Amino acid sequence: MTTALWASDGLADRLVAACGPSWRAYVDHAFVRRLGEGTLPLGAFRHYLKQDYLFLLHYARAWALAVYKSSTLAEMRKSNASVKAILDRETGLHLDFCRSWGLSEADVEATPEDDATMAYTRYVLEKGMQGDLLDLVVALAPCAMGYAEIGRRLAASDNSKNPYRAWIETYGSEDFAGVARGVADEVDRLWKVRANEGRFDDLAKTFDRATRLEAAFWQMGLDAP
Amino acid sequence: MTTALWASDGLADRLVAACGPSWRAYVDHAFVRRLGEGTLPLGAFRHYLKQDYLFLLHYARAWALAVYKSSTLAEMRKSNASVKAILDRETGLHLDFCRSWGLSEADVEATPEDDATMAYTRYVLEKGMQGDLLDLVVALAPCAMGYAEIGRRLAASDNSKNPYRAWIETYGSEDFAGVARGVADEVDRLWKVRANEGRFDDLAKTFDRATRLEAAFWQMGLDAP
Amino acid sequence: MTTALWASDGLADRLVAACGPSWRAYVDHAFVRRLGEGTLPLGAFRHYLKQDYLFLLHYARAWALAVYKSSTLAEMRKSNASVKAILDRETGLHLDFCRSWGLSEADVEATPEDDATMAYTRYVLEKGMQGDLLDLVVALAPCAMGYAEIGRRLAASDNSKNPYRAWIETYGSEDFAGVARGVADEVDRLWKVRANEGRFDDLAKTFDRATRLEAAFWQMGLDAP
Amino acid sequence: MTTALWASDGLADRLVAACGPSWRAYVDHAFVRRLGEGTLPLGAFRHYLKQDYLFLLHYARAWALAVYKSSTLAEMRKSNASVKAILDRETGLHLDFCRSWGLSEADVEATPEDDATMAYTRYVLEKGMQGDLLDLVVALAPCAMGYAEIGRRLAASDNSKNPYRAWIETYGSEDFAGVARGVADEVDRLWKVRANEGRFDDLAKTFDRATRLEAAFWQMGLDAP
Repeated sequence: MTTALWASDGLADRLVAACGPSWRAYVDHAFVRRLGEGTLPLGAFRHYLKQDYLFLLHYARAWALAVYKSSTLAEMRKSNASVKAILDRETGLHLDFCRSWGLSEADVEATPEDDATMAYTRYVLEKGMQGDLLDLVVALAPCAMGYAEIGRRLAASDNSKNPYRAWIETYGSEDFAGVARGVADEVDRLWKVRANEGRFDDLAKTFDRATRLEAAFWQMGLDAP
Repeated sequence: MTTALWASDGLADRLVAACGPSWRAYVDHAFVRRLGEGTLPLGAFRHYLKQDYLFLLHYARAWALAVYKSSTLAEMRKSNASVKAILDRETGLHLDFCRSWGLSEADVEATPEDDATMAYTRYVLEKGMQGDLLDLVVALAPCAMGYAEIGRRLAASDNSKNPYRAWIETYGSEDFAGVARGVADEVDRLWKVRANEGRFDDLAKTFDRATRLEAAFWQMGLDAP
Repeated sequence: MTTALWASDGLADRLVAACGPSWRAYVDHAFVRRLGEGTLPLGAFRHYLKQDYLFLLHYARAWALAVYKSSTLAEMRKSNASVKAILDRETGLHLDFCRSWGLSEADVEATPEDDATMAYTRYVLEKGMQGDLLDLVVALAPCAMGYAEIGRRLAASDNSKNPYRAWIETYGSEDFAGVARGVADEVDRLWKVRANEGRFDDLAKTFDRATRLEAAFWQMGLDAP
Repeated sequence: MTTALWASDGLADRLVAACGPSWRAYVDHAFVRRLGEGTLPLGAFRHYLKQDYLFLLHYARAWALAVYKSSTLAEMRKSNASVKAILDRETGLHLDFCRSWGLSEADVEATPEDDATMAYTRYVLEKGMQGDLLDLVVALAPCAMGYAEIGRRLAASDNSKNPYRAWIETYGSEDFAGVARGVADEVDRLWKVRANEGRFDDLAKTFDRATRLEAAFWQMGLDAP
């Protein structure tokens, strides 16, 4: 028996439930299914990888914005853990990963930003700047939460022959589940200390939009030239 | 019988009550009392006027930030009414007023920003950027609310011989009472639609700090060289 | 002989030249051509109109951000003229216009924001927040500059039988040419007082991206269900 | 012979020269001189220490804002090095240091923020948000640059009997000189790639204001109750 990825009685879980169709379109996207079956065309995966690297840079900016928006040392440290993970570790791992798929660092860095990458990252950053830390963390949450759900599901199969098993192992790991839980916990906590029910619809709209932008990101991979 | 300047059952009124000593130090400041008695030294008033002009420019920036932070057309229009009032009317009136006290436009514009002016305006702008529209409007509120309370009290006396009667008439007018009520209503409304009790202490701290920075602004006038 | 819409020796003109293919794809888009010929399907125009209303709300937020980012009263007034024009006049005109095309205010306000509308507006807002006033005004400029170029060109034909002549007259008017010139002049001025040649590539990328997002906005109209 | 703390031909050095009187009032402040002589009252030092801890939290927010404002991975990493240093190391060292002077963590955290601390930190944050990365780094620079100059000068004397020698060793170390040089180099680099001479007066005003706010911070220590 595995533990749930996030608490069942907090805002994060309510947000997933409230955006049901968008959530399923994201976590069960054809890109994800074919990645799990190992039938995803390599061109699609490579296109995704390059864009995901560009995504990471803005994602780090968004977590840095969360540090700026924090009110306590504990909040700052929590968000800066994500900034550090991205800048000090994930960008490097990502480039290693790209290399193992035949993409040099120069290839990756010369990649023009796709419209889907741009739309998603700027939406999150702008929503977070306009609102408070809760608005920002809700816009950030579908990424980690969805990847953890996808990773766990795909990791439950035998991937020994799947060319994408390294990706599946990364996002299916207990480490990554912990990252996602941390984000969901922060969503739950900020909701309790800051918001009232009057904000739920607006937060659900933010979560839904970010979730749909994640699905569009998979689609961009699938549509790779 | 006069109507209350703001509703007695909303957040605005609770904030005034929560920062009692700071509020009294602001609305009953020696600068205010002597202005009401007509015994305020002219140098103090002139110094205040020049700094208040510089204050207005940042105050307009803060209301423009409120437009940026808005979610609906109605919210945008409400905040932009303040931006327009300042940029299109009050800066001009202020310069006329300065001229009537022997200060040319050039004198006013060449005035270096006093520390008290800087501290107050940047605190409001920064708090508003870090938080949401409610945080911003709470930081902005002591200015209009306090001036309306002061204006109404001073206007209740006979000011026919008070050299500062034009100032008293401006802030003691029903027009200005309406401006203050509009700001207090917006504080009350945003609290109801966005926040829970967990934010009260933090909002009270913001309101208290802005109130103390208003008192420091009077003191700066009184300490004029 | 008509005067040029903007100065030929400033940054604005250099930016248009630097993004040639994107600029042409924007100002000569099939949506524009068919609008000029009066052959644009009504469904496409209506979809565009509704999204353009939603666009306007964020566009007002972006000009309010420019007021916040200003350093002088003159800069603030220039940007607030755009905020006022949108909030006090254009949103109303837009709704009148929509009504004349059979769209009620309720229809317009209930319209969900299209991805193209979202991507464009958030890009501009986020770029402007990350950078300085010059970055922001460069991201805002393709809208007014391009509409003025389109309006002037289409207005040069006989539109007496064109169902879209009101639209063409609005953007082909001398008034609107003045608005576009004001924006281009501000781009030119800020470049001279703030930037060096080292920023040109980055600013050209911003201008190009905003221009491509304008073209995608036309395409969204054309692709209307 | 010691190497210069920063390059003599860049913007950072020009800014120090341009704000001469403010710079001297900061680096030669009575608080600094008495700290160097070991005659500073312990109460003054303790008050400074507690406020400096509160300062650090906002200083981390400002460097996180610099990450948000960055355009390249290299820029992000440079600013995040400061965020990490503060959140992961300096806040802890600071609390250790406070403990060694008889101040518990609870004492420090319960300290109300002094006006001087507030004014300085919010000025830097707000200036950085309004402008670009160069404006922000210029507002941040006097802190590290001045402490390095002070530390090096005080460390040149025999401090074996000075009760404040740990403080002097920290800021007089080659490590800290490297930190200050890194900040000054970033000021110099951003100036070269982004700005023209038209911005110099404005940047000098920012640097001067931040420098004067540093001097006011020392004075706050000296004025401790």
